[in-house]
Amino acid sequence: MTWDAYRPVENQEALWFGGDYNPEQWPSEMWAEDMAALEDLGANTVTLPVFAWSSLQPAKDRFEFGWLDQILELLASRGIGVVLATPTAAQPAWMSTSYPEVLAVDAAGRRRTHGGRVNYCPSSSAYREGSSQIASAMAERYAEYPGLHLWHVNNEYGPVCYCEGCRDEFQRWLRERYQDLDVLNEAWGNAVWGNTLQDWSEIAFPSHLNAMRPPTRDGLVAFSPSPSLSLDHARFVSSVLLACFLNEKEVLREHTPRVPITTNFHGPVQTIDWHEWGPHLDLVSWDSYPSVDSHWSDAAFGHDLARGAGQQREFLLMETSPGPVNWQPMATLKRPGAVRLQALQAIARGSRGALFFQVRQARSGNELNHSALIPRHGRLDTRMGVELVGLGRDLKSIGVPPDRHRIRPRVGLVFDWPSWWAHHATPGLDQRSRYLGTVRQFHRVLAERNIVVDILGSGASADGYDVVIAPGLYVVDSAVANSFHEFVNGGGLLITTVGSGIVDPSGSVHFGGVEPGWRRLVGAWVEETDVLPPDSVNRVRFHDNGSTASASELFDILRLDTAQPIAEFMDDFYAGSPAVTVNRLGEGSVVYLASATSEIFAAVVDRFLGGGRAWDVPSSVECIEWSGTEGALAFLLNHGSDEAQIAVPEGRWTDLLTARALEGEVTIQQRDVVVARRDP
Amino acid sequence: MTWDAYRPVENQEALWFGGDYNPEQWPSEMWAEDMAALEDLGANTVTLPVFAWSSLQPAKDRFEFGWLDQILELLASRGIGVVLATPTAAQPAWMSTSYPEVLAVDAAGRRRTHGGRVNYCPSSSAYREGSSQIASAMAERYAEYPGLHLWHVNNEYGPVCYCEGCRDEFQRWLRERYQDLDVLNEAWGNAVWGNTLQDWSEIAFPSHLNAMRPPTRDGLVAFSPSPSLSLDHARFVSSVLLACFLNEKEVLREHTPRVPITTNFHGPVQTIDWHEWGPHLDLVSWDSYPSVDSHWSDAAFGHDLARGAGQQREFLLMETSPGPVNWQPMATLKRPGAVRLQALQAIARGSRGALFFQVRQARSGNELNHSALIPRHGRLDTRMGVELVGLGRDLKSIGVPPDRHRIRPRVGLVFDWPSWWAHHATPGLDQRSRYLGTVRQFHRVLAERNIVVDILGSGASADGYDVVIAPGLYVVDSAVANSFHEFVNGGGLLITTVGSGIVDPSGSVHFGGVEPGWRRLVGAWVEETDVLPPDSVNRVRFHDNGSTASASELFDILRLDTAQPIAEFMDDFYAGSPAVTVNRLGEGSVVYLASATSEIFAAVVDRFLGGGRAWDVPSSVECIEWSGTEGALAFLLNHGSDEAQIAVPEGRWTDLLTARALEGEVTIQQRDVVVARRDP
Amino acid sequence: MTWDAYRPVENQEALWFGGDYNPEQWPSEMWAEDMAALEDLGANTVTLPVFAWSSLQPAKDRFEFGWLDQILELLASRGIGVVLATPTAAQPAWMSTSYPEVLAVDAAGRRRTHGGRVNYCPSSSAYREGSSQIASAMAERYAEYPGLHLWHVNNEYGPVCYCEGCRDEFQRWLRERYQDLDVLNEAWGNAVWGNTLQDWSEIAFPSHLNAMRPPTRDGLVAFSPSPSLSLDHARFVSSVLLACFLNEKEVLREHTPRVPITTNFHGPVQTIDWHEWGPHLDLVSWDSYPSVDSHWSDAAFGHDLARGAGQQREFLLMETSPGPVNWQPMATLKRPGAVRLQALQAIARGSRGALFFQVRQARSGNELNHSALIPRHGRLDTRMGVELVGLGRDLKSIGVPPDRHRIRPRVGLVFDWPSWWAHHATPGLDQRSRYLGTVRQFHRVLAERNIVVDILGSGASADGYDVVIAPGLYVVDSAVANSFHEFVNGGGLLITTVGSGIVDPSGSVHFGGVEPGWRRLVGAWVEETDVLPPDSVNRVRFHDNGSTASASELFDILRLDTAQPIAEFMDDFYAGSPAVTVNRLGEGSVVYLASATSEIFAAVVDRFLGGGRAWDVPSSVECIEWSGTEGALAFLLNHGSDEAQIAVPEGRWTDLLTARALEGEVTIQQRDVVVARRDP
Repeated sequence: MTWDAYRPVENQEALWFGGDYNPEQWPSEMWAEDMAALEDLGANTVTLPVFAWSSLQPAKDRFEFGWLDQILELLASRGIGVVLATPTAAQPAWMSTSYPEVLAVDAAGRRRTHGGRVNYCPSSSAYREGSSQIASAMAERYAEYPGLHLWHVNNEYGPVCYCEGCRDEFQRWLRERYQDLDVLNEAWGNAVWGNTLQDWSEIAFPSHLNAMRPPTRDGLVAFSPSPSLSLDHARFVSSVLLACFLNEKEVLREHTPRVPITTNFHGPVQTIDWHEWGPHLDLVSWDSYPSVDSHWSDAAFGHDLARGAGQQREFLLMETSPGPVNWQPMATLKRPGAVRLQALQAIARGSRGALFFQVRQARSGNELNHSALIPRHGRLDTRMGVELVGLGRDLKSIGVPPDRHRIRPRVGLVFDWPSWWAHHATPGLDQRSRYLGTVRQFHRVLAERNIVVDILGSGASADGYDVVIAPGLYVVDSAVANSFHEFVNGGGLLITTVGSGIVDPSGSVHFGGVEPGWRRLVGAWVEETDVLPPDSVNRVRFHDNGSTASASELFDILRLDTAQPIAEFMDDFYAGSPAVTVNRLGEGSVVYLASATSEIFAAVVDRFLGGGRAWDVPSSVECIEWSGTEGALAFLLNHGSDEAQIAVPEGRWTDLLTARALEGEVTIQQRDVVVARRDP
Repeated sequence: MTWDAYRPVENQEALWFGGDYNPEQWPSEMWAEDMAALEDLGANTVTLPVFAWSSLQPAKDRFEFGWLDQILELLASRGIGVVLATPTAAQPAWMSTSYPEVLAVDAAGRRRTHGGRVNYCPSSSAYREGSSQIASAMAERYAEYPGLHLWHVNNEYGPVCYCEGCRDEFQRWLRERYQDLDVLNEAWGNAVWGNTLQDWSEIAFPSHLNAMRPPTRDGLVAFSPSPSLSLDHARFVSSVLLACFLNEKEVLREHTPRVPITTNFHGPVQTIDWHEWGPHLDLVSWDSYPSVDSHWSDAAFGHDLARGAGQQREFLLMETSPGPVNWQPMATLKRPGAVRLQALQAIARGSRGALFFQVRQARSGNELNHSALIPRHGRLDTRMGVELVGLGRDLKSIGVPPDRHRIRPRVGLVFDWPSWWAHHATPGLDQRSRYLGTVRQFHRVLAERNIVVDILGSGASADGYDVVIAPGLYVVDSAVANSFHEFVNGGGLLITTVGSGIVDPSGSVHFGGVEPGWRRLVGAWVEETDVLPPDSVNRVRFHDNGSTASASELFDILRLDTAQPIAEFMDDFYAGSPAVTVNRLGEGSVVYLASATSEIFAAVVDRFLGGGRAWDVPSSVECIEWSGTEGALAFLLNHGSDEAQIAVPEGRWTDLLTARALEGEVTIQQRDVVVARRDP
Repeated sequence: MTWDAYRPVENQEALWFGGDYNPEQWPSEMWAEDMAALEDLGANTVTLPVFAWSSLQPAKDRFEFGWLDQILELLASRGIGVVLATPTAAQPAWMSTSYPEVLAVDAAGRRRTHGGRVNYCPSSSAYREGSSQIASAMAERYAEYPGLHLWHVNNEYGPVCYCEGCRDEFQRWLRERYQDLDVLNEAWGNAVWGNTLQDWSEIAFPSHLNAMRPPTRDGLVAFSPSPSLSLDHARFVSSVLLACFLNEKEVLREHTPRVPITTNFHGPVQTIDWHEWGPHLDLVSWDSYPSVDSHWSDAAFGHDLARGAGQQREFLLMETSPGPVNWQPMATLKRPGAVRLQALQAIARGSRGALFFQVRQARSGNELNHSALIPRHGRLDTRMGVELVGLGRDLKSIGVPPDRHRIRPRVGLVFDWPSWWAHHATPGLDQRSRYLGTVRQFHRVLAERNIVVDILGSGASADGYDVVIAPGLYVVDSAVANSFHEFVNGGGLLITTVGSGIVDPSGSVHFGGVEPGWRRLVGAWVEETDVLPPDSVNRVRFHDNGSTASASELFDILRLDTAQPIAEFMDDFYAGSPAVTVNRLGEGSVVYLASATSEIFAAVVDRFLGGGRAWDVPSSVECIEWSGTEGALAFLLNHGSDEAQIAVPEGRWTDLLTARALEGEVTIQQRDVVVARRDP
């Protein structure tokens, strides 16, 4: 296949705008209409063919690339770039029939039947070989395709399979991790309940079949007889899915060494540890589906996590929705301006573009009520059409700055998958499995103050940050503790909370109840921890000015070693007990919150963080400042329900979207955006 | 067996009064007491032996009809008629043992164990042959039985089986429907998610084993990977159960060509499309179990549906309860008068009688707390006993009018099973699967205005109706659209709403987003549809008099072709957008509701329907007027909590129940009934 | 093994204080610390090795007792007594591998995988033989151990297994119970729904696989096609677990004929009928885990049940928690004083001691967040440590009275497992399965009046009681009725309620709707029973003084034979109908409550019971008076939120805990306790 006849894709350096495109779902006669609509929209990028395995390989030994060639020619001839997807998220029916072991087995031990998607066994060799084969065929065929921006491997990895093959693989994986079964027995504390193992083959999955009671929490690991088993199983799940990705990445890299490779994450889910995967991706990409009632910081959380998982490189908003999302509890319309606002928010936080699911709405299938750039009626002379065309224009106006990586947070926020898994798998302390919720709440407190953070794993380097915030960091080992000692000694500020430092990487409590280095960091130890229902509130009083904040859910009763209290509980039998402490170590400090509510955290943030921003905005306006080599940029996004009046700081500022000079005060309407550039 | 010795059943032409009778559950010594009680009650009809297969055929090659002969003799000797039931709703244990494939397999793929009822595989040949054999034996033996009113085949058909045999049958059924697998792939849109099939044998049931997520909605099809697959599976379920019915009907018809045949439906359930089955039943019958807090229109809905499914013929209330229903959330006593009121409501709406579950209360089994005509203590000198004896007298007083079919609604209300199934199976638009709820609400608006309707399928003829109301008619093809064009052009009024005309009979969206003929009917197209939580309300203002009504849940933003707005939304970003439109076509009109609430529908009904009724009653009084050849009849049923005073219209009226002449005003106590007859 | 070198355990006659001890979970280097802590706490008893099967028998043919010998030596050398546990609640992994049938099968028919605990099939011969073998080996080895207080067989028996082996066992059990299949068919009423059986092998478990609908209630039997099947299955479950216990008891008795044997119950659960088991236990013991928001009478209920199941002998609080319980909805800290208060409550109600789960907190496993006497941090210089040390001192101060069995209730309260099972399995009357709740409510009414009761089975002798209270005693046969006739004729007072006397021991309703002797007791019959939602209230007026009380949920409409009404309903259509009646029989009376609320019961208690107590205390103070041979003892426990002032009765009283003389008024702080002894 040669593509010489086609003009090179011009907009390689523009911000990407477009989305998932599934032309195999409708007659080829309609493809010209698709092209026209893409041009009307100003789209420059499409992702395909995400789910077309059965169309590309209708039988084990038959490939059909003709239709894809044809589409790619149409795209190339219009200069539209392509994110090329391997279609391995849904195996063809013939594969499920010929290799029944390709079908996943659920947590109740039932082999699933064919249908849907994400329905494969990730350790099946037939699946792995088939994936490799189709990826290889595509890479070979389209290696020279002029508009090939990026490889998109699979889609939203996710199946958790409980088949015997996966169990064997799990046992092998554990053998590699622990080497010696006695080490595993010791690490997991298998003497508890007489669960000591004599042979690797005795290890069963944590599943419905050995659950202590019917699962009551969502997620991967809530029904397990042993938190340690669950924790390692969660690691295994993430790892075996990563192996699927690497299996395809290898052949793609081989054929197209210069094309970057990604896969799209679907939010912070328990099955994939973004921080483990990040280093294997050339570009982290994710799918953002804020619901109509979600706070604007929720999507920001994902963006900041993508940036953090990608070691502060740019990321890609691979999918978002231009309107109703059929699988959400309510398929509500996005209110006027919301789509543009959310797309520009992603750009502001470092996305390479704004891609949508999907270009044209499906006529059939589970998602036929999911919105698209081209809706059912096919028209763009509509409220949404006009907004989308405007967004395309805006993205052109912004362009890709020559020095792209200019969002440089000074604050790191730790969200640690193993801590999430372990909290989730262990009944008692974090009763409602609030770990992710707490990190999100802390993130929102920061976001509302326009303190931008990278969201890091616990193993990430703190280099380059002034502050690291690690609420409820449950899993800690001496390496983590040492690294934080170094950070704090060197002048860093570490903020942490109740529920941290308790278990080792296998989920067993450290002797003494806390990792010793962690205790030295905090300068205090926990005598006991109270757990109360969400509506039970204790008050906390800060010593400096007597101001108060509400505590709830978890309450450490501390005994101080070297830390000093700066706030205390006011109620219950532990009234007077320290609620917030500061421990000075070397050049830095560790602040500890004995209860981890937003109010207490906000009070701490207001005391310890701040400054350094040019723009002064209300909390309903998101302000992301870029400080690059060529003049500052500030994205001002009004998420409030009213217009906002904002004073323009010193210097000559221009709104890139309207090319207006900004002077004095700038007024931003509800859901409107200003991208202010300061001329150098 | 000859029955010549017994007097013919006299009351063949009376309204039927009695119920399910299961004498095999107690010693034959008690049967004389049963007979005495039936006579005390004035009962003239019993249904039996519904669940007696194991008693009639205790082994594969042994039949025991003696006990049934004896009961039938007792009944015949007292002139009590019989609805004779084939006992095939619960196969004998020996059958489950000898033919394990007779036991149904559940949606999780598990073969069920023996016990309970409705536990058979409907495509099992052992079951089909066994059913045919027992039906044949009964028909042969009792063909000449003098009191044989009606055959009652099986009971509340319902099992949905997921066994391999049913799957093969499903594949055969699909092959017959689509002929060509490419046609099916196209119709279902299988290219979505790469679900294209290469072989009929690749088709799996929609089940827990290929569900996208654990089922969260009740009913047949909520967990499917593909709405089209679910929709056709629902059709198949209804169809395979119908085949079971026809299997027995055939042998009964052969032996007793003049005895009508029915089976009893159990409310509008997803597993049986009444409109599909109706033509195969000589008399539609159903089981009505209003709960203590249900509105009186709920039972009326079933009656109107039974009449609609039976092409406007009379129907039969086969089962209702004389008191607490054990399987309802609360087994509350029926308040004084309620049983009589509900029974006479059924008669008013066209039932051939009032039959109860059951004659004598069970001592054992799952339903031992279900009420009966003869309660545990066996006495009738009780509150309920007195009421039931009175009801027997009332039914005699009414008699069966010589020209029975005199309830002649001018309004049809469409409740379409395929639209229900498809809405239910498709996440997004009708998020809470409200279709049945909306039709019920519309029915209640009409019932409270005493506008009686037949409830029709979408394929029914509109001949003979002035108005057809089709809320949310989601599945529409050109034939349906054309038929409505004809109806409207000829002067009919069609009222329809948001959520209609969108998908074809395979559940795929029409190109352009709506069936073209449907769009011409409506005279408008839908730019987008907002979906909001139930407590989010928009107001709608009618242009004629400025009155308002509340809109909720679904909101179409319309673009008008030829329709004219008569009301508009008042709130949100689509304030001013049309909320109700009228499109004049030929001699008729189409009214479209962009939001389908009771309030908006009531406002439309009050503007477009009305008149033609002799009696003027408050909304808590149900008034059913019959306009036969021999003088009008009006059933007045007071469902309110107070007595009602109602003006007697012109003419000479007599209350059939008390034989009082009605003059001036008639006072009806709470839960009391007047059956007014106008002398010709 | 000889133990001669060790001093005899001195405190054999002291109250036991200590708890479950699992030293196999941590390095033996820490055992010396454990011993020191036990001594600091003043503990005199530990229970071990509850879950150590895999440590004691790491392979089928290899035993490792060395580590246990070592621990027992350490304990013996410190004079600490031992409750020696057989470790059979969690079989070793090698057993699950070699004998897969040892793993239980769940109600959905799925063989479970290894892991957790209570995961064995109770009818598996491999399990039975293995249990017997390990019990025998332990008994042989430790028969002469000087500190062996008690055998503790297994732990919280409980698995319900649905394997084919258990099904065969169930069929055998039924054959033994009914002898003749026709008798079973008749007893179960199998003619209902045609479930008549022709062969014992046709009997299936009540399970998810023949459920009428998905189970919606918790517990053993809620999903059954037949209440009778469920009722006998529940009996079988309790019986097959009892067989496991007896299997081990036999070998222990043989080796150590003088050591008492128990197993620890875990609250009133559906799987074990305490009244059936009680006679087989030398000492009834149970595990009490009141949640932070439970009423103090909840734990008292268990104590009174343990005493009742043990035929009024002392019992043992085998496990309770010194702090948060990880598996409860909230792992809340016990408030200051609560642990001591709850421990002394158990002593007051007849416990042999106060044992805790557990001595040292686990580092791993499902319960790592469960509290312990020695917490994670290992320190006792804490709030809880100080409280526990004080409790140890208190227990020494109380000592074991020479005549132990001095708590002698005059009132029996019937809690009947078969009635619980049958109510639970039968939809309709007791809609919300409130039977246990009602008995608990009645118990609380009595507890708050400091009327101490023994909780009895329906078959227990009423000898020695003045009053027997049997709310909702659903399952009654003539023997039970006769026994109550004798009791009442002899002067006893029987109080019973709606929902009693209805079914026979097979769960079928008595002919006539009530057991005839029961009707004669009550002197009335039930015309009908209304069931209303919990928030629907009727009022009841007592005739003597016009006072009123609220009725709810169940309402009998009575017809009186010989009984006299003393209160009537005030509302609804049965206003004026008797709500409480009295039937005088011989020297005694039967009081019947047509609605069984706390308020009505309290009004009845205040009219019919009372007197005989020396101390007059408010309802928030629990007062347990012992009247032994050597002077009275009164435990005064303040459960209120304020201090209580209580007048000291006549006589010379001393507080055993403080050795203070009590005169005039004694003030008891919140959660404080006084143990007052009257000098003879």
